[in-house]
Amino acid sequence: MMSLKSFFEPSSVAVIGASREPGKLGHEIFKNIIDAGYKGKIYPVNPKAPDVLGVKCYPSIKDVPDEVELAVVIVPARFVPAVISDCGEKGVKAAVVISGGFGETGPSGAELERQLVEAARKAGIRIVGPNCQGVNSTSVGLCATWPLIRTKGPISVISQSGTVLAAVACWAEEDKVGVDKMVALGNKCDVDETELLEYLSNEPTTRVIALYIEGVRDGRRFFQVARDAAERKPIVVLKSGRTAKGAQAVASHTRSLAGMDAIFDSVFRQAGVQRVSSVEELYDVCKAFAGLPLPKGKDVAIITSSGGSGILALDACVELGMNAPDLPPETRERLKEKLPPECILKNPLDLTGSATSQMYDEAITALGESRVADAHVVIVGDPMPGISEVIVKHVLRGKTIVPVMLGGGKAEAEERAKLADSGIPVYSDPVRAVRTLSACVRRALWKDSFQ
Amino acid sequence: MMSLKSFFEPSSVAVIGASREPGKLGHEIFKNIIDAGYKGKIYPVNPKAPDVLGVKCYPSIKDVPDEVELAVVIVPARFVPAVISDCGEKGVKAAVVISGGFGETGPSGAELERQLVEAARKAGIRIVGPNCQGVNSTSVGLCATWPLIRTKGPISVISQSGTVLAAVACWAEEDKVGVDKMVALGNKCDVDETELLEYLSNEPTTRVIALYIEGVRDGRRFFQVARDAAERKPIVVLKSGRTAKGAQAVASHTRSLAGMDAIFDSVFRQAGVQRVSSVEELYDVCKAFAGLPLPKGKDVAIITSSGGSGILALDACVELGMNAPDLPPETRERLKEKLPPECILKNPLDLTGSATSQMYDEAITALGESRVADAHVVIVGDPMPGISEVIVKHVLRGKTIVPVMLGGGKAEAEERAKLADSGIPVYSDPVRAVRTLSACVRRALWKDSFQ
Repeated sequence: MMSLKSFFEPSSVAVIGASREPGKLGHEIFKNIIDAGYKGKIYPVNPKAPDVLGVKCYPSIKDVPDEVELAVVIVPARFVPAVISDCGEKGVKAAVVISGGFGETGPSGAELERQLVEAARKAGIRIVGPNCQGVNSTSVGLCATWPLIRTKGPISVISQSGTVLAAVACWAEEDKVGVDKMVALGNKCDVDETELLEYLSNEPTTRVIALYIEGVRDGRRFFQVARDAAERKPIVVLKSGRTAKGAQAVASHTRSLAGMDAIFDSVFRQAGVQRVSSVEELYDVCKAFAGLPLPKGKDVAIITSSGGSGILALDACVELGMNAPDLPPETRERLKEKLPPECILKNPLDLTGSATSQMYDEAITALGESRVADAHVVIVGDPMPGISEVIVKHVLRGKTIVPVMLGGGKAEAEERAKLADSGIPVYSDPVRAVRTLSACVRRALWKDSFQ
Repeated sequence: MMSLKSFFEPSSVAVIGASREPGKLGHEIFKNIIDAGYKGKIYPVNPKAPDVLGVKCYPSIKDVPDEVELAVVIVPARFVPAVISDCGEKGVKAAVVISGGFGETGPSGAELERQLVEAARKAGIRIVGPNCQGVNSTSVGLCATWPLIRTKGPISVISQSGTVLAAVACWAEEDKVGVDKMVALGNKCDVDETELLEYLSNEPTTRVIALYIEGVRDGRRFFQVARDAAERKPIVVLKSGRTAKGAQAVASHTRSLAGMDAIFDSVFRQAGVQRVSSVEELYDVCKAFAGLPLPKGKDVAIITSSGGSGILALDACVELGMNAPDLPPETRERLKEKLPPECILKNPLDLTGSATSQMYDEAITALGESRVADAHVVIVGDPMPGISEVIVKHVLRGKTIVPVMLGGGKAEAEERAKLADSGIPVYSDPVRAVRTLSACVRRALWKDSFQ
């Protein structure tokens, strides 16, 4: 089968159904491709428009004078099979079919989808969709989806829900983390989650893969591919249809078989894929994998200026199966020399309200050198100028540090922004941070288990 | 015992230890009280400064020419007992002792704290603290804490952690929800969580009470007060020290007895107090109680433009013990007349990617009139101009609607802001929204259980 490269690095793109009317998908997507700074050639196709946004428009894909590698299709479903045949004649290699009105709508839509697949096979064209929210490949500025997302980053997302896709991408853009490739699967009449997972696991610009799925087409093949992919990079999966009611709803939404949830759970665990249970957690965990070194094990030290937040983090560590080892006497001695007497030299190490960035630095250094823990949860309760530099320094030295900032008001925002500039995630809640860390620890233990 | 009113509505305030030096607590707190717009008289006290921020300063509280109702104390611990005695001579009624260095530091600090309590008793002064992050009463513009929070709102917070207090207040300010009264308990040498709970449960400006605690002083009395308070208004509690390790850490942090967690769980449940497990959830749930009518039961209808998000919400509903009833035939008929054919007329009701605010309006109206559900989770996946007006209208008519917005980029932000202006909470993740709703449902069922 032809590679998926034409979806992500096409030399030219035609938008079939490009529209002059703001608000219409055919307009928004065409505009997003231009605004994202796509450098290849771009051809709007629409028999009724002389140009779209000042770009010369063609009545049919066959009228485009040059080669077209990728087609983005936003025309009513009944025209799509013929459009794909035309694309075949033109030598188009891949098509993203945004249009809905196929298998998801019932028998007549399913027949149209069959015709679409047949046309694509004849023409040798690979299809993403139909009924999908498109594709984004930030490395080439190809935002063939919405909203407009341009920030390049380490996370690629494969999603059976356009909204989940957009949410993760929006958060990654806000945090300056950025995304690499985004694919909405839609009805996956051709390209599916497994093939994309395999492709992205070999993409050097993708460092973490997020998956939202409702089912998989071929469970055995998914397992093999996911396991191989997980050896290369972290895979984080959100799978819905966990309950019986949820599984029924999955059948209505994307006609997937949600399957027995316990089986998925076990497949994910064996394949080394980290399962999460909400959209926010999907993003939280991806952000951690993208920005932090993997811990070596499950021993966690908590350093905090807020006693209460430290205890909340500690409870969560224990409940999620991690260890919070006591500090050995020599480490306590060392800390005693470096820190003021009000500090509580335990785990959590409570620097109290008088904490400074300098004290955090001493604490991380001392704990790090005595190898008390595999990972550090660093909780900053008050505005703390300079804390981001301290965290960046230790992360660059290979320490797994999960920063939590809460309660600092506007002063906090600056330090958060500096961490973002260094690609280091920061969390607003100690429990949420520890839950995220637990996914990193699970990956570390999984990797250990076969080494 | 004297009422706590002097902490929240004092006619005059002295800041003992007010400082001219930015960055010092004595400066920041004095400045916050001024910047928050406190309308009563305010007296800085500091023997070394002629004035602070242009306000005439007095060498001792006893030198202040007028009456002083509340003292905020930020001087080193060893001076505090004498300062409190001076306050007594001056006729001060209440003092917030910010200073640390008391019982939390060991035996000599405990002795100082004993002296502080003795001085306060003799003088008839009520004490909040010591070792605390202060008090804020937005209705009178008294921000005797940090950071500066001025937005008035329905949520009052009592917290054994200053950072948790500040975090909830900051989020409430960002969302324009606002806070009413905030109290950091510190070492609670006098005023404790139970007395504050009782006081705030009778405050008409407080509609919801958030509590972060590590233990309670008198379990039986706490239960009685909490149960009475919960009949009047929602109480949401975050209690740390759930695990054995956590309970040990609690003993180091505030010398509280965390107690058997299962007992707390049962006390909270019987008292009708909603327990949550993270700082974000504490805020999420308070925001829902503040802005939404209480549902009548546990039947939930999900209305969504994002199929995937709807299924995630459905799974969460089932897992958290709520019902997602099927739509009765007459309701489906009605929806069929009002909605385009691509909509999936089930629960979740999937309006699909072509959803408009008008369609949401029709859907909420139809489901509401047929009384399918006690609450509606309304998920908006794409930018949807006008959706906030629709939600506001139905909430004002008494419908419990939990709005979720995700993936809408910048267009979404405008609709979010409009909901905020109407005091209606909005969530970014379907699972987080449903978890929040489940706390509202638990309260509804608790209220039902004795009516």
